[in-house]
Amino acid sequence: MTANPILLPELRSMITEGDVQGLREVAEELHPATVAEFSEGLEPGEIWTLLDSVSVDRQAEIFPYYPMPEQVALLELADRPKAGQLLESMASDNRDDVLRELEEELVEAILPFVAKAERQNIRMLLSCPEDSAGSLMTTEYASLPTGITAGEAIARLRAQAPDSESIYYIYVLDAERHLVGFVSLRDLIVARPTALVRDLMETDVIRVRLDEARDQVVQKLARFDFLAIPVVDADNRLVGIITHDDALDAIREDATDDAHMIAAIAPLGESYLEAAVTSMTWKRGVWLTILFGTGAITAMLLARAPIQHAWLIAFLPLVVASGGNCGNQSATLVITALSTGDCSLADWPRILRREVVLGILLGMLLAVPGFLLAAFYAPSLTDALVIPVTIMGVVMMGTMVGSSLPLVFRSIGLDPALMSNPFVSAIVDVVGILIYMAIGMLLLQ
Amino acid sequence: MTANPILLPELRSMITEGDVQGLREVAEELHPATVAEFSEGLEPGEIWTLLDSVSVDRQAEIFPYYPMPEQVALLELADRPKAGQLLESMASDNRDDVLRELEEELVEAILPFVAKAERQNIRMLLSCPEDSAGSLMTTEYASLPTGITAGEAIARLRAQAPDSESIYYIYVLDAERHLVGFVSLRDLIVARPTALVRDLMETDVIRVRLDEARDQVVQKLARFDFLAIPVVDADNRLVGIITHDDALDAIREDATDDAHMIAAIAPLGESYLEAAVTSMTWKRGVWLTILFGTGAITAMLLARAPIQHAWLIAFLPLVVASGGNCGNQSATLVITALSTGDCSLADWPRILRREVVLGILLGMLLAVPGFLLAAFYAPSLTDALVIPVTIMGVVMMGTMVGSSLPLVFRSIGLDPALMSNPFVSAIVDVVGILIYMAIGMLLLQ
Repeated sequence: MTANPILLPELRSMITEGDVQGLREVAEELHPATVAEFSEGLEPGEIWTLLDSVSVDRQAEIFPYYPMPEQVALLELADRPKAGQLLESMASDNRDDVLRELEEELVEAILPFVAKAERQNIRMLLSCPEDSAGSLMTTEYASLPTGITAGEAIARLRAQAPDSESIYYIYVLDAERHLVGFVSLRDLIVARPTALVRDLMETDVIRVRLDEARDQVVQKLARFDFLAIPVVDADNRLVGIITHDDALDAIREDATDDAHMIAAIAPLGESYLEAAVTSMTWKRGVWLTILFGTGAITAMLLARAPIQHAWLIAFLPLVVASGGNCGNQSATLVITALSTGDCSLADWPRILRREVVLGILLGMLLAVPGFLLAAFYAPSLTDALVIPVTIMGVVMMGTMVGSSLPLVFRSIGLDPALMSNPFVSAIVDVVGILIYMAIGMLLLQ
Repeated sequence: MTANPILLPELRSMITEGDVQGLREVAEELHPATVAEFSEGLEPGEIWTLLDSVSVDRQAEIFPYYPMPEQVALLELADRPKAGQLLESMASDNRDDVLRELEEELVEAILPFVAKAERQNIRMLLSCPEDSAGSLMTTEYASLPTGITAGEAIARLRAQAPDSESIYYIYVLDAERHLVGFVSLRDLIVARPTALVRDLMETDVIRVRLDEARDQVVQKLARFDFLAIPVVDADNRLVGIITHDDALDAIREDATDDAHMIAAIAPLGESYLEAAVTSMTWKRGVWLTILFGTGAITAMLLARAPIQHAWLIAFLPLVVASGGNCGNQSATLVITALSTGDCSLADWPRILRREVVLGILLGMLLAVPGFLLAAFYAPSLTDALVIPVTIMGVVMMGTMVGSSLPLVFRSIGLDPALMSNPFVSAIVDVVGILIYMAIGMLLLQ
């Protein structure tokens, strides 16, 4: 999202003129996301002038909507007590996101200015691995004991006034903070005020463990259409919740990362236009170099190939590309199905059976035009048969390699998307050339 | 998600034995998504036996969690009044989804058994284009007039008992149903009971129009972290809402479709394991055939190439693949950035500038190993220069073609993901061979 070109000069002149009243109106009356969007084009110092016009609570609402590099720049620029105050007021999940991007020394310098309870909370969240449920969760949630009535529960919620992210599901805890059930705010409103929370609550709570993999958590939340899902420790004690908006962001990030990995790009970790050219060169270059290395094998193989059948050489890119295209299709289908939960590792026999059948059908589909085209260039129709036979072989090999590699990667605990496309391309190219040479030698003897 | 292999035989034997009590327990006590998941492996007739054990309202909760082909099969099997009753009880967005998949005749046969108000609602939703806001929305929402107090508002909500999807944001309408504001249930709970809704409501409501493109709507909802976003007609009258869970499903679907299109697969419209082999063959085969057609151009070009420099032929796949890989990286980056809203068409000068710089850097990166490898096979070091020079040219061309084609497609109103990869591969291959031949002829004169 780019900065709004119309409001920017206006904001800038308000900042230069010290029009605090005008700035406060902008920062208070628009949606926090809109405030961030409109002021993205300002320098960090100017953004602070804008933010300083409102309360720290409002600052904490606007701040997470800036792009991550901007958030880092803002915290680096602020003096420590100010940064500490802002972090203290932020929702714990947003705070955790930006702290993970800061230099460790800066974090240590700011932390003394954060209240002790929040400080411990920060250290707990920062210690969760990046791809675990813990890294997505917020520690702000509404909870109730079992023994009270719906009316009392609503009175308590009114007094606590939890924010809108966390008020709609209320978790019911026993004296040791074990999760025993949940009620929705809807159920509390609709119930008789004298009804007991114990009788209203749902006890079959779908929950996730703190160390559960992030993509599993997101799949669960998506499948059950929850607003939030509770996170518990090994003893079933509630430690936080993951809310729908964070799950949605995680899904978008994961899907984009998958698409990038499938195209042989290391995940950017930031948006396309924000990524520095140097980091982009590295993230693309590393895979291009690996692919170049495997491509070099094709050059070395071809340098040894007998050259007496020149027309066969002309068909080489076409034949090998057919296998590569099919292989990439199969790999992409399996990777996306694994990552959306449409299939799991246990489905491998079914997946491979399907891909064998598809390999045969697609091979036949391409073999026909392959034969017709070859008939023009080959010395005889018998010679031309090399092309359709090779296409059949290469396409079937492509679907097999493409569909099984993501499964192999998943089974050894690697991300299926991580290396599949480069691997598929590399293996299909090299094996494809070998198949081509073998069939050529066999049929043209 | 595959059927649970443990519960399935148990369910089946309950069905055979006519154990209605046992079936009712399963269908009533688990989460609706879990009921659907556990019974997915049953025949449609058996699923109906399970569903018949509970009320039609509960049926309507479970039904949308079955995969789409199963939902269609269940409605085809049911007699018309039963199907009508089920549809009447379903949330309008889920109902709309399955009705769009049914044969039109079947829809017309069922509709007379749906109450008149719902029937009009169905016709209105079905008339919205598939990729518009209207196709995602539900017409169940909570609304209030401006003149009442928070306490009265809660009393009304208690009486109406809207379902949990739609109770958390309440839309404030004037006498002509124009959208004038909204309050969250949280704000009503936290407010003094005597406060007026008029004073509590947020009047700066972010809304979408009925005909707004689906991906724009989803981006808005994701950006602002809303639980729901209101949908209005051309006169700003509220017609429905789009809830977070439907937006999340839409994001997953769109991301998967994008990944598939990038890999030259027509969107499946169903999950990988559920898609019929025939439809899969078509959805992959159509693009493979197009790619084969463009690949044929490379074969025809090569058949005319002078053969006196045999070592150049050996490097052909390597050199052309370098351009293709870079092109696919650029295309994927631009497609995903466009579809997540990270960049827009207006950013094109910035995108192209970046890709020119990246093309130069990545070209240099690959030119070095290219030169080293060529030095082994070329008759002289001067001859070997053909390879790095060609790689520079092909890689720069690849980034240009890869990044600009999705932009061109978007600008003429086509889905950037739809044709970019096949087009990128085709153009880069053909132009790459031409560049290679030209540079070869120039330098080896």
